[in-house]
Amino acid sequence: MNQHISFIDKGTITSAKGFQAGATFAGMKTFAPEKYDLGIVCSTRPCTCAGAFTQNEVRSFSIRITEENVRKGNLRAVVANSGIANAVVGDPGRKDALEMARLAAQHLGLQPDQMGVLSTGLIGVELPMALIRSALPKIKLTETGGPQFARCIMTTDTAPKEAAVAYPSSQRTITIGGVAKGSGMIHPDMATMLSVLGTDAAVEAGFLRQALKSAVDRSFNMISVDGDTSTNDTVLLLANGAAGGPAIAAGSPEAALFQEALDQLCLHLAKAIVRDGEGASKLFEVRVEGARSQAEARMAARTISNSNLVRTAVHGNDPNWGRIVAALGRSGARVEEERLSLYVNDVCIMEGGLPIPFFKDAVIQQMRQPEVTFRVHLGLGDAVATAWGCNLSEAYVTFNSAYTT
Amino acid sequence: MNQHISFIDKGTITSAKGFQAGATFAGMKTFAPEKYDLGIVCSTRPCTCAGAFTQNEVRSFSIRITEENVRKGNLRAVVANSGIANAVVGDPGRKDALEMARLAAQHLGLQPDQMGVLSTGLIGVELPMALIRSALPKIKLTETGGPQFARCIMTTDTAPKEAAVAYPSSQRTITIGGVAKGSGMIHPDMATMLSVLGTDAAVEAGFLRQALKSAVDRSFNMISVDGDTSTNDTVLLLANGAAGGPAIAAGSPEAALFQEALDQLCLHLAKAIVRDGEGASKLFEVRVEGARSQAEARMAARTISNSNLVRTAVHGNDPNWGRIVAALGRSGARVEEERLSLYVNDVCIMEGGLPIPFFKDAVIQQMRQPEVTFRVHLGLGDAVATAWGCNLSEAYVTFNSAYTT
Repeated sequence: MNQHISFIDKGTITSAKGFQAGATFAGMKTFAPEKYDLGIVCSTRPCTCAGAFTQNEVRSFSIRITEENVRKGNLRAVVANSGIANAVVGDPGRKDALEMARLAAQHLGLQPDQMGVLSTGLIGVELPMALIRSALPKIKLTETGGPQFARCIMTTDTAPKEAAVAYPSSQRTITIGGVAKGSGMIHPDMATMLSVLGTDAAVEAGFLRQALKSAVDRSFNMISVDGDTSTNDTVLLLANGAAGGPAIAAGSPEAALFQEALDQLCLHLAKAIVRDGEGASKLFEVRVEGARSQAEARMAARTISNSNLVRTAVHGNDPNWGRIVAALGRSGARVEEERLSLYVNDVCIMEGGLPIPFFKDAVIQQMRQPEVTFRVHLGLGDAVATAWGCNLSEAYVTFNSAYTT
Repeated sequence: MNQHISFIDKGTITSAKGFQAGATFAGMKTFAPEKYDLGIVCSTRPCTCAGAFTQNEVRSFSIRITEENVRKGNLRAVVANSGIANAVVGDPGRKDALEMARLAAQHLGLQPDQMGVLSTGLIGVELPMALIRSALPKIKLTETGGPQFARCIMTTDTAPKEAAVAYPSSQRTITIGGVAKGSGMIHPDMATMLSVLGTDAAVEAGFLRQALKSAVDRSFNMISVDGDTSTNDTVLLLANGAAGGPAIAAGSPEAALFQEALDQLCLHLAKAIVRDGEGASKLFEVRVEGARSQAEARMAARTISNSNLVRTAVHGNDPNWGRIVAALGRSGARVEEERLSLYVNDVCIMEGGLPIPFFKDAVIQQMRQPEVTFRVHLGLGDAVATAWGCNLSEAYVTFNSAYTT
């Protein structure tokens, strides 16, 4: 990490200048009725925006409207609810998302097409608009409201996920803050990942889109809790220039620094989601090196991190490298067995396609750490990718099967 | 099912005329030392052959030799061991597989390149050739030895998988018999599926290959226990013509009947594997209809049947259709939400993209059956595909994580 970039103590989305947030309780989270379930985050000044959205063919209406407003370049504020995903409900879903945008815009003195709408929760249930209509005007936005907003998007997350990074740039300090939620799935169909990021840097819109895509590809797109992509996944980034200075453009030294700070923030939030994965107690990292291409390195790292057999081995602290090699082999990446090497936390357990006799208790000891790294070297090229997964536990199965019966 | 095709009582690979089999105990299955672990099945007459092999980039040496002999069209017998996969062991793996073929050929009075070699078990461990050398000559082949062979390929399977179908054809009865093993994975890296099929029909080699590919694509390739493809998956089919009559050629009425009988047998064995999946107590079927193409129907059916969230819902008898729709949406198949319909055992729970209010207890009752069918209609075309999966249980996690520690 660049020495000039640092994480801010208790950082959140409102750590960046010119952002306000707040939340309230409308009554949508029956499983946690005491908690915030409706909130807003807003830039106090015009800003540029970028977004990344689920690739699922089935998408929440909230996402479709948000994506349209991001595409127009209009986004300046986000209204979010948890408890209900506003997905697979037919045309009422579209009307409800539009009304949420209109109500929130009214409350903020903005236009509806400056709003993003985020929803997370049950699929197939309509939003209770009467509750939302009466609760929304109660949201009080403040410059310290980030933690409220971080809580209002939680479903079965056991902890809020928020952070901010800052770095000096010319006479200024640039801050990027953000919040995220992960997938708990104690309640069904909550496999939703949402993140809202805000920066007080002025950033040229084209570069902002490119920077967000790059950061998301290395962070949120490289984590997996259970391989099920939700209908609502969204990452939004607003850049309002409140820190002052000229807009950051692609190719400049400022752009490189901004990219690295954004990467660090996204990675931090993404890892927090995996660590809090449903039933999970352990984060593991899969680093694939020496692949023929970036695409193959990514496929290999993601396939290994998402293998049920690898994940149960991590759960049992079992240095079971045969499972890693089998997952690698089916990933779609080119593999030449006699060039393969494999390391557990830097202990080499296989080289040149051959197992190395290792002292098993020592490697089990390595596996017992709360974070474990598997490093696979393919020996075929220069491409590298890293993915993160969590252990698959009995608790995951119990939580996800004990719902109705 | 065609009324002329019937399953034979206690059918197995040696139900087809002109096949002999036998097995012995060499000492490779330390987790079940009292069981057969080395066996042979052999056609007593020349035959045509076809094979289907794992697509994993990392492959057992046993497979590579078998595939080569199938490609040459030479295969007439198969020697198989369980307990050790002969995978990821470097060059000794090649030498050992060749020696197994040589020893078995000698025992049978055949040439080594007429042998297939199948191995299933631990990855990364060398075959104990001293044990195999002394045990192999003890194998006694008989025309009733099929059940012995079915047992010698078992690893953590709780029951042998064997069956045979027969149908009349002109003056003759054609029989196709087969054995298979599934993936228990109590012991790690045993995720191996093997099947050997034999028929006394005379079948032209080109059509035999085509028929096996077609049958495997609809059966073994449509099941999933945990999404992890093994390094050793193999299906072999030998056709020796012992029933008499001219060779079956593509495009004939005899070919269609043979195909259907082969499909039925493969489907029966494939479903037996899923039903005996590690930790599984329940088989479920996912039938996708109305897809734009066969490829999309297959992707959709397989993605749903392999989703951890769908599998835990089945485990909990939870009619949680949101998870099915979310898995469908990420499958890669084209989906238009407003055309979707969904049925649980013929009870419609969603139509035109909208949930239908259903009496939940009645659907839970449906889900409690030992076999459950989810039928998804995409409303976009005519393509249909069916896949099979099993419930994901706490026992699966416990078995697969409780190995070394």
